[in-house]
Amino acid sequence: MLERLVYPRLLWYNTTIDVMPSKNAIGADNQQERLETANWITGFTDGEGCFTVSVINNPTTRFGKQIFPEFVITQGAKSLKALKEIQEFFRCGSIVLNKRYDNHNEHLYRYCVRSVVDLEKHIIPFFDEFPLRTSKQKDFLVFKKVIAIMRKKEHLTKSGWSKVLKLAGKMNRKKKRF
Amino acid sequence: MLERLVYPRLLWYNTTIDVMPSKNAIGADNQQERLETANWITGFTDGEGCFTVSVINNPTTRFGKQIFPEFVITQGAKSLKALKEIQEFFRCGSIVLNKRYDNHNEHLYRYCVRSVVDLEKHIIPFFDEFPLRTSKQKDFLVFKKVIAIMRKKEHLTKSGWSKVLKLAGKMNRKKKRF
Repeated sequence: MLERLVYPRLLWYNTTIDVMPSKNAIGADNQQERLETANWITGFTDGEGCFTVSVINNPTTRFGKQIFPEFVITQGAKSLKALKEIQEFFRCGSIVLNKRYDNHNEHLYRYCVRSVVDLEKHIIPFFDEFPLRTSKQKDFLVFKKVIAIMRKKEHLTKSGWSKVLKLAGKMNRKKKRF
Repeated sequence: MLERLVYPRLLWYNTTIDVMPSKNAIGADNQQERLETANWITGFTDGEGCFTVSVINNPTTRFGKQIFPEFVITQGAKSLKALKEIQEFFRCGSIVLNKRYDNHNEHLYRYCVRSVVDLEKHIIPFFDEFPLRTSKQKDFLVFKKVIAIMRKKEHLTKSGWSKVLKLAGKMNRKKKRF
């Protein structure tokens, strides 16, 4: 019952299909469709998704900086529908327009989840259940550690803050830092 | 029986699970695992895959140019395992190393299917069965038309050649052409 309260949107993973034949058929179809979408989302994230932990200046905070974790998927305007499908699936996060004024044909949209509570309740349990298959899995595992520290408010202590900075430094290193 | 000969590697989509309980369980697991990978591949392609039809100069051909269709997924070296998984799934195509000498941390690998026969037999039926959910679906449908023309050798005629050029012009227009 506790799990039902904590992860209400993820319950279908282990949903027992109803015993009544008609409902059973509907339930199985629905379950199958959700599983298909879940695996598709993992693939899409492996291709285009990103787990980031940014450290931004904020003089009002204890350490003069703020940790900013985010799960993002970016797409061109023509594929906005796919982002809406993901947002509907997770039932959290927002879609933000990034206008482009260069020689590209379309503006960009970003699906992003920034709330630590949503990340912990919806995004992380999902990718625990449907793990990524590329090197992004490593980023995810680091990201998960950062969120755990933040949920326990440990990042407000000096040692917790150092831990988070160290973890953030391990992520998304596609380019060398000079 | 004809379908069995034409699409031997895709038969599992409609495979009947064996009646024997033990085999049934194994078959169902295997089927489920394959379905999960199939949906993951569609998601991954939506994120990172590409259907292209290039037109390259080749003075030895009738029209002085050659059509070059390709299905590609590119990944950094750290995610080579994911490309191998896809290659194993489709049982066709090759993985090519693209060395990088800029400030990136890793070389790139491209999984590509260039054979018109493989595209027709393995790639196209797969994406018919597990359709893309982004705007890449439109590219795929155009790509499919090009492959159909090429398989019938219609691109060797003047009208067929024009058709292919027109179709190729519709694809992958992320940037404006000046």
